[in-house]
Amino acid sequence: MIDELLLKPGERYDDLERSNLHIIQDPKRFCFGMDAVLLSGFIKAPGGARVLDMCTGTGIIPLLLSAKTEASEIIGTEIQPESADMASRSVKANALEEKIKIINADIKDSVRMFGKGSFDVVSVNPPYMPAGRGLANPGDEKAIARHEILCTLADVCSQAAAVLKDGGHFFMVHRPGRIADIFEELRKNRLEAKRMKFVQPEAGKKPNMVLIDAVKGGGRELIVEEPIIVFKEPGVYSDEIREIYGY
Amino acid sequence: MIDELLLKPGERYDDLERSNLHIIQDPKRFCFGMDAVLLSGFIKAPGGARVLDMCTGTGIIPLLLSAKTEASEIIGTEIQPESADMASRSVKANALEEKIKIINADIKDSVRMFGKGSFDVVSVNPPYMPAGRGLANPGDEKAIARHEILCTLADVCSQAAAVLKDGGHFFMVHRPGRIADIFEELRKNRLEAKRMKFVQPEAGKKPNMVLIDAVKGGGRELIVEEPIIVFKEPGVYSDEIREIYGY
Repeated sequence: MIDELLLKPGERYDDLERSNLHIIQDPKRFCFGMDAVLLSGFIKAPGGARVLDMCTGTGIIPLLLSAKTEASEIIGTEIQPESADMASRSVKANALEEKIKIINADIKDSVRMFGKGSFDVVSVNPPYMPAGRGLANPGDEKAIARHEILCTLADVCSQAAAVLKDGGHFFMVHRPGRIADIFEELRKNRLEAKRMKFVQPEAGKKPNMVLIDAVKGGGRELIVEEPIIVFKEPGVYSDEIREIYGY
Repeated sequence: MIDELLLKPGERYDDLERSNLHIIQDPKRFCFGMDAVLLSGFIKAPGGARVLDMCTGTGIIPLLLSAKTEASEIIGTEIQPESADMASRSVKANALEEKIKIINADIKDSVRMFGKGSFDVVSVNPPYMPAGRGLANPGDEKAIARHEILCTLADVCSQAAAVLKDGGHFFMVHRPGRIADIFEELRKNRLEAKRMKFVQPEAGKKPNMVLIDAVKGGGRELIVEEPIIVFKEPGVYSDEIREIYGY
């Protein structure tokens, strides 16, 4: 049970169905999706690793990584104060203050805040869409989470590369349509893609997500893994999805 | 029936099982593989198009494109004289001299030979592997077809971009492990990937080929299509493969 003082009006306390973890979310705001969960299943963080999760939102990835990896310290940064506040309260509600720290900050300040070469792992589930001009409410919270208004792919990759140690891993989930941009930014920042995995909603369908694992200063040796198929038949999750979700 | 004068000792005259096309191959030399056939199925060439197939080998792609597209003129260039000679004789044997021309030439001379902006479509099934130092026989014909000894990815992309018209399409089949290199060379040459399609030997297996369609001067809008699955069960080709092969 959560201490009611940690919940604000309109917020929910959702069960993550993994190690008794819960997360505070407000259904009227941006809530985490399958992409964050699949990214957490794709990330490998060795024992004792220091992890930075950029654009952490309500902290879904730090929470899941605390259960799924042996990382010793996970820092989540989020530019939107309301989301960062929810993430901090979720960390407290799960009694994970020793392991996870949430900071309300702009990812463009990562190097200044943490210093160069200070992390073993950086992860990010960034805004997917270019800012564009057709955007109705660029100040809107959901728009900021989805569009590159306050944080571009170039920002994400350059900051990740700077705060990573040589040989450190950068994990990202993104849209397949951005792959050419992703590879451009990775190489520009000496991040070499080592593993790539597509996610297809069903077998025989176009992928709608891509997971990438890049190594700072790594050699040129990319493996495109077998895709993840989300539904094995309509309404029925594949075994792989059930395993990642921990059902 | 082929005029016996067109066949040299040791050569075969193989049925392509499509529009009564045949190809001359020597089983002791490099013979075409599924990658060339899948590339020919991936290529779109509009009516009247002028097509250049670089690294054409024994001419498999020009032969298949003559049947599968409305292209009006297809030029195949091949650096190895023996392969170019076989390709020329196959064109003659299929009575396609009006449509297909084979030239024994280095692709690095493409701009000099054909001029800038002279093709609507360029296709290539290039050597997949970096030359490396461990290569036993860099003068060996099969090694030249498989390794970047006489033709690198950078050569292929820069020459393709130069001879293509603005808006022209560049089609390539390659190994998934080279994707980061491919995107680097494409962007460097103002070729923008528009479609990408992986080929998996079976569902649930890693892809072992990738097909790419890039447009010279195109906008940033990449679609990763549903993958091609080669075998639907052990030893049984999928419907898509049967359709591409024309069975």
